[in-house]
Amino acid sequence: MSHADGASGETVAALGEFGLIRAVTENRRQPETTLLGPGDDAAVIAAPDRRVVATTDVLVQGVHFRLDWSTPEQVGRKAVAANLADVAAMGAAPTSVLVGLACPADTPAEVITRLADGMWAEAERAGAGVSGGDMVRADQLVVSVTALGDLAGCAPVTRSGARVGDVVAVHGRLGWAAAGLAVLGRGFRSPVNVVNAHRVPEPEYAAGPAAAQAGATAMIDVSDGLLADLGHIAEASKVGIDVRAGLLDVPRRLVEVGSALGADPLRWVLTGGEDHALAATFPPYVEVPDGWRKIGLVTESGVTVNGEPYHEETGWEHWR
Amino acid sequence: MSHADGASGETVAALGEFGLIRAVTENRRQPETTLLGPGDDAAVIAAPDRRVVATTDVLVQGVHFRLDWSTPEQVGRKAVAANLADVAAMGAAPTSVLVGLACPADTPAEVITRLADGMWAEAERAGAGVSGGDMVRADQLVVSVTALGDLAGCAPVTRSGARVGDVVAVHGRLGWAAAGLAVLGRGFRSPVNVVNAHRVPEPEYAAGPAAAQAGATAMIDVSDGLLADLGHIAEASKVGIDVRAGLLDVPRRLVEVGSALGADPLRWVLTGGEDHALAATFPPYVEVPDGWRKIGLVTESGVTVNGEPYHEETGWEHWR
Repeated sequence: MSHADGASGETVAALGEFGLIRAVTENRRQPETTLLGPGDDAAVIAAPDRRVVATTDVLVQGVHFRLDWSTPEQVGRKAVAANLADVAAMGAAPTSVLVGLACPADTPAEVITRLADGMWAEAERAGAGVSGGDMVRADQLVVSVTALGDLAGCAPVTRSGARVGDVVAVHGRLGWAAAGLAVLGRGFRSPVNVVNAHRVPEPEYAAGPAAAQAGATAMIDVSDGLLADLGHIAEASKVGIDVRAGLLDVPRRLVEVGSALGADPLRWVLTGGEDHALAATFPPYVEVPDGWRKIGLVTESGVTVNGEPYHEETGWEHWR
Repeated sequence: MSHADGASGETVAALGEFGLIRAVTENRRQPETTLLGPGDDAAVIAAPDRRVVATTDVLVQGVHFRLDWSTPEQVGRKAVAANLADVAAMGAAPTSVLVGLACPADTPAEVITRLADGMWAEAERAGAGVSGGDMVRADQLVVSVTALGDLAGCAPVTRSGARVGDVVAVHGRLGWAAAGLAVLGRGFRSPVNVVNAHRVPEPEYAAGPAAAQAGATAMIDVSDGLLADLGHIAEASKVGIDVRAGLLDVPRRLVEVGSALGADPLRWVLTGGEDHALAATFPPYVEVPDGWRKIGLVTESGVTVNGEPYHEETGWEHWR
């Protein structure tokens, strides 16, 4: 994709608001769900189910991403992926994203157009479009994404429906993003597949609706860390969850990186956020859908690993 | 409304993410359209029309608002009003807003809870709720709002449907916010009703759907300035627009403030943004709905005042 406007090293201020809007919206392919795309006061998006699932996340340069660690495309993909995973975790299929973008006036226009490229690419991977946005001046690059989705007749899968005796299962990678962040934090840039897992999560969005259709009783996307997010389900459902460590996949790659860095790879798997895997509970008689792996059980109380409390910090809290 | 958590002078960091989320979401009243509110991965909002109208705006402290000029409640109301006016300008009724909020760790929690109070109040004024959000750390206070709305069976009213011969009409105040900003910029705090017009716009959201039902051919909310926004309609519709200055209401109050500050009040009316009035075009045979005032005509080309180009700067562009 060529961005003649941005490639010249122009700043966003030089290109101007309207030039920049053109650069990030022109010649993009909208899915059928985008009934009216960017360019008007608001977008119009299909909501065939008569309910719309909606979520929003804000990513801040220096807090949630670093442009010396990730390309603008990767930041754009990650910002969109984090939101689409939340939509999928309700059991909905993503339909559209809207983007709010604040940046300094001297930001190279190319950074913004490449960020937009990543956003469009990730939205497209989910079958969604980018239907609207806003771009304004600020001291720091801040990316705000709102994602919408459609439930296609299913009840939304909340955090509060888990019942004692349900099976706990996950879909997608765990611990990879945390390992990648640890690698970058030590000043390394490889192994690339580990580092890239931090840069761009790769949730399979269709796993959410599949779990909903299979009868998932509760679901969440793993953004804060597996134990922290299972804790959110446990709290909302007023139950406990026991993870069986033996059922967790601790990939050889993470074991290698763990020994190189003197870190415990199981800790990454249990507490690392940002992979945006899905975690769900299913009634015990249900066959979990393809790609879902059973990792534990819903219990009476407490979030435990092999029946014991896990004593490491369990996840990410903002402002700490 | 009491905010025991915030009133003690605690910072957002001390209160913590989850305490803060509680403070801004607990004991709020959701409308029926909020099928599932804050607290899960995503919200679920009614979309009875099977289409959802969606728009997003970002407001940055020091760029779009100043907390020495406006209270946090006023900033919250304005951020939500700007978005709900965009929804109304499509002819839709607002259903819900989602809020992304970035702020420094040492921000008093009370600033955020009062901001939320304003958001809830403005959403409620429109019959909408606040269904979701995200709060993160940043160097600067940034407020991102996404608003959703329902078309109730009407076609969306875009910017591109104006036809030569249509009547141009507006609903709501023009020039007041610009006059208020001019007053504040000179270091004054009165007249209060002028200053408050800058602090909190007061769009009548129902005027948008009423215009759609009456057969409006194009509509926009006046956020950049009347001539600039009519220019957006003219450009999208490939027509011109002539405003008849004699039909514009230049309120006595603005005339007084204009003479006190040595400014032209007509210029505020023609080019001042942020009042979030609605401007629309109607076929000439249509009776414009209650509260709409005819101010001009759709012509072949050019945006003119009494047939002549208007030579002042015509509105707001970001990064300039």
